[in-house]
Amino acid sequence: MRFALLGCGVVGGGVAKIVDEKVPALELVRILTLPGEIDDPRQTCDIADIVNDDSIEAVVEAMGGLEPAHTFILQCLNAGKSVVTSNKAVVAAFFPEFAAAAEASGAGLFIEATSGGGVPWIASIIKARRIDTVSEIYGILNGTSNYLIDAMEKRGIEFADALAEAQSLGYAERDPSADIDGIDTANKCVISSTVAFGSLCRRDIPVHGIRQLTAADLAFFRDELGRAPRLMAHGRQADGSYAACVQPELLPLESIEANVPTNFNMATLVGETVDTLKFYGQGAGSLPTGNAIVQDLLDCAGGERPVYATETTLAWDPALLTSDYVFRTDAAVPTGDDLGHGYCIVRGLDCETAGALCDELSAVDPTTFMAALR
Amino acid sequence: MRFALLGCGVVGGGVAKIVDEKVPALELVRILTLPGEIDDPRQTCDIADIVNDDSIEAVVEAMGGLEPAHTFILQCLNAGKSVVTSNKAVVAAFFPEFAAAAEASGAGLFIEATSGGGVPWIASIIKARRIDTVSEIYGILNGTSNYLIDAMEKRGIEFADALAEAQSLGYAERDPSADIDGIDTANKCVISSTVAFGSLCRRDIPVHGIRQLTAADLAFFRDELGRAPRLMAHGRQADGSYAACVQPELLPLESIEANVPTNFNMATLVGETVDTLKFYGQGAGSLPTGNAIVQDLLDCAGGERPVYATETTLAWDPALLTSDYVFRTDAAVPTGDDLGHGYCIVRGLDCETAGALCDELSAVDPTTFMAALR
Repeated sequence: MRFALLGCGVVGGGVAKIVDEKVPALELVRILTLPGEIDDPRQTCDIADIVNDDSIEAVVEAMGGLEPAHTFILQCLNAGKSVVTSNKAVVAAFFPEFAAAAEASGAGLFIEATSGGGVPWIASIIKARRIDTVSEIYGILNGTSNYLIDAMEKRGIEFADALAEAQSLGYAERDPSADIDGIDTANKCVISSTVAFGSLCRRDIPVHGIRQLTAADLAFFRDELGRAPRLMAHGRQADGSYAACVQPELLPLESIEANVPTNFNMATLVGETVDTLKFYGQGAGSLPTGNAIVQDLLDCAGGERPVYATETTLAWDPALLTSDYVFRTDAAVPTGDDLGHGYCIVRGLDCETAGALCDELSAVDPTTFMAALR
Repeated sequence: MRFALLGCGVVGGGVAKIVDEKVPALELVRILTLPGEIDDPRQTCDIADIVNDDSIEAVVEAMGGLEPAHTFILQCLNAGKSVVTSNKAVVAAFFPEFAAAAEASGAGLFIEATSGGGVPWIASIIKARRIDTVSEIYGILNGTSNYLIDAMEKRGIEFADALAEAQSLGYAERDPSADIDGIDTANKCVISSTVAFGSLCRRDIPVHGIRQLTAADLAFFRDELGRAPRLMAHGRQADGSYAACVQPELLPLESIEANVPTNFNMATLVGETVDTLKFYGQGAGSLPTGNAIVQDLLDCAGGERPVYATETTLAWDPALLTSDYVFRTDAAVPTGDDLGHGYCIVRGLDCETAGALCDELSAVDPTTFMAALR
C-alpha cells in the first residue's frame, strides 16, 4: 500500500524508519514538510500533491496541532484516502467531523497512536467491544506526568527539579502545561471514552493536573494513607449515562498503577465477560508511537474500517465517578474532615463537584492540591 | 458462522453463554459431551455428527487432556474445519502436527485461550510480529500459583494452608501438581515461545515450581533481598538461538509483576520498535477464557488464518537465560555464597545448569527451594 506522511518530526521519522527497514508491504511515497526541512526526493510542501495523487491510499498525519492538521485530514478523508493519526488534540477536537467524513467516503480513520503511544489501547477497546459492553476505562496516559511523579517518589526531589530534569531529557516540553495540567490526558480520555462507550464524549470534562504536587504531599500520602498519586484518565458508563474526568488519584501502594515506573503508560478496561484487562507500554517516543501508526497502516491495508460514534447517546452524570477527595490547601474547606499536617478529606464528591471545589480553593490558595482517594 | 463445541464444562459453558447472549453472528449448533451430561437438543455423543456436518465451519475444543482431544482436533482440521482450543496440554504436545494439518486443509488453528485465559496474549504476540522481531517473552501465566504466593505474602500463611484455601475456592485442583510444579506454565511457555520466536520450541524445557516455598522464604526474600517470588515463564531469542524455562523468579518489590494480585496473569513481550508491552487480566475462569475463545471464533469468521512454525529453526542455548540463583537447602551447595539463615546464592548460572543443580540438591534435601534473582 502506497501512503504519504504529513510531518516528519519525532513521530513521522519513526514511521519512516520502521516502514523503510521492516515493512515491505508499505511504501512511503510522499512526505509533506515545510520547505527545506528534510532532504528527501519524496518531500513536498504542497498538500495537493498528496490529495490529488490517486495512487496514494493512506495518509499519516504526524504534524500535531489543530491547523492545518484539521484541514489536511478532512481533505484526505474527503478524497477517499484513509487517515492514520497520532494527533490527540485534533482528534479530540474534531472526532465526529472526521468520523463522519471517513464513513461518507469509505475511507478509514485510524487513531491508535493518539492514546497510549505504542500501547495497543484503542485497538484493544474496539476488540473488547465485539463481545462486551465496556463499563469502565481508566489509566495513566501521560508518560511525562508519570515520569515526574516517579522521580519525586523515588528520589524525594521537588516538582520543579523533576520537571527541569524531564525537560533536559526531552520527556517534557519547554511549556509543560499540556502534560502537567492534564490537557494531553484529557484529549486521550475523550477519545478513549468515545471509543469505549460508543457515544461521543463531551470535550469539556473536568480536568485537574499535578502542577501543585510537592515532595511533602508524596510523603504524607505514602506514610499516612498508604497511597501514591497518579494522574489518571477515568471514564465510566452505566444505565444510559456516562462520566469522564482527568484528575490525580491516590492509589494503594501495592496497586499495579502505583508501581508503573518512569514514563510508561498503563491503561485498563473493564468488560462484562473479559473482566479487567490492563495494557502497559511506552506511551510516547519515536519508535513506539511509530509502531502504533504502522500497525494502523497494516490494518488499513488489510481492509479494516473502524466505525466510531458521531453522536452523544449517553447522558452526562458525574455521579458515576464519585469518591472521597483529599485536599491540601490553606483555604477553608467547608465540609472537610481534618487529616492533620494541612490535609483534609471531603467524602463522597462526584468528579465535577470536586473539581469545582478545587477551583474555588485554588482561587484563595493557588498551591491547593486535590486528589481522589481510590 | 455455525460452530460446534467439544466439551461443555467450565470453559465450554462460558463459550455457550457468551455466544447465546451476546454474539448473534455466531451460532452454536452442536455440543459433544458424554451421554446425559447436559440436557440440550444440540447435544451429541458422536464426533462424526460434527466432522461430517458440512454446515459447521469451526469447532471449539474445550475438553482438556490429550486424548481424545488430539484425535478430535485432527479429525476436524483434516475435514477443513477451523479449530479453536483452550487446551494448552494438547497444543504444547502436538503443536506442529496441528499447525501442519490446518495449513494443509486451509482451516484455521486458534489458540488464544491456551495461554493467559482472557488476556489477549497470543494475538498480541502475533500482531507485534507483523513489525518487530520479538526478542523476549516472560510472565505470570498460572493464576493458581500467583494466588498461592499472594495469599502467603499478604497474610503470612504457609503454602499448605494457602493451597487448601485455593482448593476450597475452586482456584486449585485436588491434584495441584500441574499448577504448583510449573507443568501448566511450561505448556503455555512452549506455546508462547513458538509463536513469539517463529520457531518450534522444544517441549522438555527446564521446569521448576513453587511447591517448596515457605512463609519464611517470603519474609527473607522481602526483608533481606527486597524481592518477591513469582512463578515465571521465560523465553528469549538472540542471534539464531533461543532458550525457554519455567522457574520461580525473585523480582523487585516495586516491579509490576511483584504486585500482580490474587489469580491474575501478567505477560510481557519485548519488541525492537514497540519496546516493552505488558498484558494483564484473568488467566482462567469460565467467562474470561470463554471470551478469548469467542474472540478467536470472530477472527475465524472474519477469515483470519494464523500461521505457526512447524519446525525448530533456532538453536537451543540456555545461556540466553542466565542469572544469579538463590537456594534454600540443607544440602551442600558447592559454589554458593552464604546469605545467612540457610540461604545461599550461586552466581551466573544458565537456566538449565541451575535446574540440574536444584534437582541434585533436592535429591539430598527434598525441601530445597530455588529461584532466579532478577
